[in-house]
Amino acid sequence: MVTRRELVRALAGAVGEAAVIYRPEDLLLYEYDATIEKSQPYAVVLPATAQEVADCVHVCRSFGIPVTPRGAGTGLSGGAVPARAGVVISTARMRQILEIDVENRLAVVQPGVANLHVSEAAAVHGLFYAPDPSSQKACTIGGNVAENAGGPHCLALGVTQNHVLGIEVVTADGDVRWLGGRVPDAHGYDLRGLFIGSEGTLGIATSVIVRLLPVPPSVRTLLAIFDSIEAASRTVSAVIGAGMITAALEMRDNDTIRAAEAGLHCGYPEDAGAVLLIELDGVADAVEAQSGRATDICYANGTREVRSASSAAERALLWRGRKEAIGSLGQLAPNYYILDGVVPRSRLVETMRRVEAISAAAGLQVANVFHAGDGNLHPCIVFDEREPGATARVLEAGAAVMQACVDAGGALSGEHGVGFEKQQFMAWLYNEADLENMARLRPVFGNDGLFNPCKVIPEGTGCGEMAHQAAALRAAGPDAYI
Amino acid sequence: MVTRRELVRALAGAVGEAAVIYRPEDLLLYEYDATIEKSQPYAVVLPATAQEVADCVHVCRSFGIPVTPRGAGTGLSGGAVPARAGVVISTARMRQILEIDVENRLAVVQPGVANLHVSEAAAVHGLFYAPDPSSQKACTIGGNVAENAGGPHCLALGVTQNHVLGIEVVTADGDVRWLGGRVPDAHGYDLRGLFIGSEGTLGIATSVIVRLLPVPPSVRTLLAIFDSIEAASRTVSAVIGAGMITAALEMRDNDTIRAAEAGLHCGYPEDAGAVLLIELDGVADAVEAQSGRATDICYANGTREVRSASSAAERALLWRGRKEAIGSLGQLAPNYYILDGVVPRSRLVETMRRVEAISAAAGLQVANVFHAGDGNLHPCIVFDEREPGATARVLEAGAAVMQACVDAGGALSGEHGVGFEKQQFMAWLYNEADLENMARLRPVFGNDGLFNPCKVIPEGTGCGEMAHQAAALRAAGPDAYI
Repeated sequence: MVTRRELVRALAGAVGEAAVIYRPEDLLLYEYDATIEKSQPYAVVLPATAQEVADCVHVCRSFGIPVTPRGAGTGLSGGAVPARAGVVISTARMRQILEIDVENRLAVVQPGVANLHVSEAAAVHGLFYAPDPSSQKACTIGGNVAENAGGPHCLALGVTQNHVLGIEVVTADGDVRWLGGRVPDAHGYDLRGLFIGSEGTLGIATSVIVRLLPVPPSVRTLLAIFDSIEAASRTVSAVIGAGMITAALEMRDNDTIRAAEAGLHCGYPEDAGAVLLIELDGVADAVEAQSGRATDICYANGTREVRSASSAAERALLWRGRKEAIGSLGQLAPNYYILDGVVPRSRLVETMRRVEAISAAAGLQVANVFHAGDGNLHPCIVFDEREPGATARVLEAGAAVMQACVDAGGALSGEHGVGFEKQQFMAWLYNEADLENMARLRPVFGNDGLFNPCKVIPEGTGCGEMAHQAAALRAAGPDAYI
Repeated sequence: MVTRRELVRALAGAVGEAAVIYRPEDLLLYEYDATIEKSQPYAVVLPATAQEVADCVHVCRSFGIPVTPRGAGTGLSGGAVPARAGVVISTARMRQILEIDVENRLAVVQPGVANLHVSEAAAVHGLFYAPDPSSQKACTIGGNVAENAGGPHCLALGVTQNHVLGIEVVTADGDVRWLGGRVPDAHGYDLRGLFIGSEGTLGIATSVIVRLLPVPPSVRTLLAIFDSIEAASRTVSAVIGAGMITAALEMRDNDTIRAAEAGLHCGYPEDAGAVLLIELDGVADAVEAQSGRATDICYANGTREVRSASSAAERALLWRGRKEAIGSLGQLAPNYYILDGVVPRSRLVETMRRVEAISAAAGLQVANVFHAGDGNLHPCIVFDEREPGATARVLEAGAAVMQACVDAGGALSGEHGVGFEKQQFMAWLYNEADLENMARLRPVFGNDGLFNPCKVIPEGTGCGEMAHQAAALRAAGPDAYI
């Protein structure tokens, strides 16, 4: 038993007073991420070193207080929401690029480094870090590791899993350990691989060794404009069927085009049924040949027009229309709920039709962004949470969409993780024995239930109630026992 | 307690009498793989379905008999050697390609399918399976999954881990489960990823869903001839430093060249200090441009000559010289011991010098093959096991080479696994707590010590002794208790 005041004092002993946030008004910022669910922690700590992270974990464990790791809070499955209140450990102060090793093509970075900063720092050496989530300006490498983040360019190059060589972690029981290292590592069980995508339930990354790739000498970005999603989807199948490996193959529907144009003015035609962003990279001659081929395939499948970015600025503008598309949905309604499902590419159109039917039946508007090349859908339900019952209706429609993906032989998540949001859906895919098997991985890293609880594996209804209980305790003041 | 006769009868009940091998003379074939260590099992079973595999596991568990899975037995770390005797479960009868899904670019195959057969079957659709171990004519997909196999073309495309979407496994306790599926799967812990490279200690793959890639439209294979390994290594660094992504970048030293020429007659110059095999693929124009660039870099770094394969037959011959290089070491001596270490690319030459010094000090001849692009060395010690004390001397030198790799910041294995051979070296890299943590993964899959024992994690000296005990029991006849 400990009071909030005592907890804060103990944490201040570990990281210094300035690195503990505990005033209710300051904590408001830490009760949510980029999803819908909210839950306020008792305190937030901002350690600067792996040892400080470990010390914070030990403090919390000594009081039996849950810990929730947090990167930039851009996550889309509620992974950084402190479902059972407790303490949030933020990596925001660990944002140094420690080393760029050009000869061995790797970088050693702290977990709070923003994804894009790695590529920016490597650019002077002609190198870059491949996974590029749309939130890459803000999201952190630590968060990317936790969620096994993807991005438009992961179609050709693979997700975070393929680009991280080693991770220093503070495990759930407060040990500091290295998983993997500076070379592709094939001795013993792949704990590095297991940690990536474990959504902050096994520990906190405190240092990450990432692979860097050479920047392709030439890039060509095409925008193909279609009257319908069907025609755009047919084109995706044709491009892939032709054996082309594109650097990116992204689709958006009319709703996201209009929203983005209203806010970003990227020059996308507002009356298009769908657009495809096709990127090709490599040696200049090959890029020219490949873009010609892709353009022919687009016209053969009914494109209205294919535009080609003729300068870096034009390319950046086309990508801005894609990468900031979700943010610009604010043009359509005050809130949005972005879903993340995967289906076999061959079932993309049929699944999207089901998504349309689900949202129509619920009277909801859905805008769509796809990593079309790998069958990853992101339906975004736009709504106004002030409207009574709206949030519940949105969550219900979201669940139906996830069910549609699973029915089509797909997965619950392409790149955003299960988090808090989708844990209850896990039972659609796994029986109790399977889930129990997964749960048995937690003690391997020392997680006995206090480390990022209520995430990934269903833990029943206790999670929400705990958050309410925390609210009551906060109301009772800093000297109430927690 | 059970006699060998009773064990064989119970196994015959599970898979039929014809699928149980138990005569001592037949068992000789199953006491070794492609390494040095040997240990004979009590029996070998050849199940045809996942259920039969599960039934065999249940039979063995009911008698407390160890199980060792076996693919083609081409493994290079003793993973298929039944260290504690017991029963070998071979996947040799499970060799059907069940499905090729062209639209979604995947294949569903049984574990006993030879690696090369997948690419051969996919070729009519213009697709192939990327990981290509040198043993690909013989080694199986199940074994590739167990060892997370690599190959020359994994430099650009990644190892088995990146090309397997889903695996049906019979876990160590006899459950049949799917890990992953038909889409890149990001929900829950990555048990698929954990299983890949677990060297048959967590279960047996009974069905594997692999990704297929489009065959590149154009390929160019170059052979660059150097006077010294230093010049060849400098060239590797220069090619990579220039930002080129080659499809393969393979080095061999003079000893392997001479051995291969004696047996294979591939046209490699026998007086070369080293050769580099450089492969470029992609769109024809780009391949031309890239081979020109690679050739220039070779000449700038002192190559004697760059040859270019001008036909598919010439290309096949060049590759034969590389892929069958190890086998042709039989030209130098009756036995060879192939090592597998990785170092950061920048420390390749210095590590190789240490390997030379170690072998010279031990009076042993070492031939070298490298996946130079990713810092993966394969020193091959050639020897004659009939010479008294030779094997012990070779194993000692092998350990020193592994230590040299670890000292250079490298890893114990690039692609062959830890197996039986290198388990005792794991303590160089991991402390007891780390190893204990790894061991805690086994019960998650139901391995309580009876499933592929004495592999990956050091288990002390008991392993070899058990094998001797088994030999004594065999001598005692089929009705002795085991």
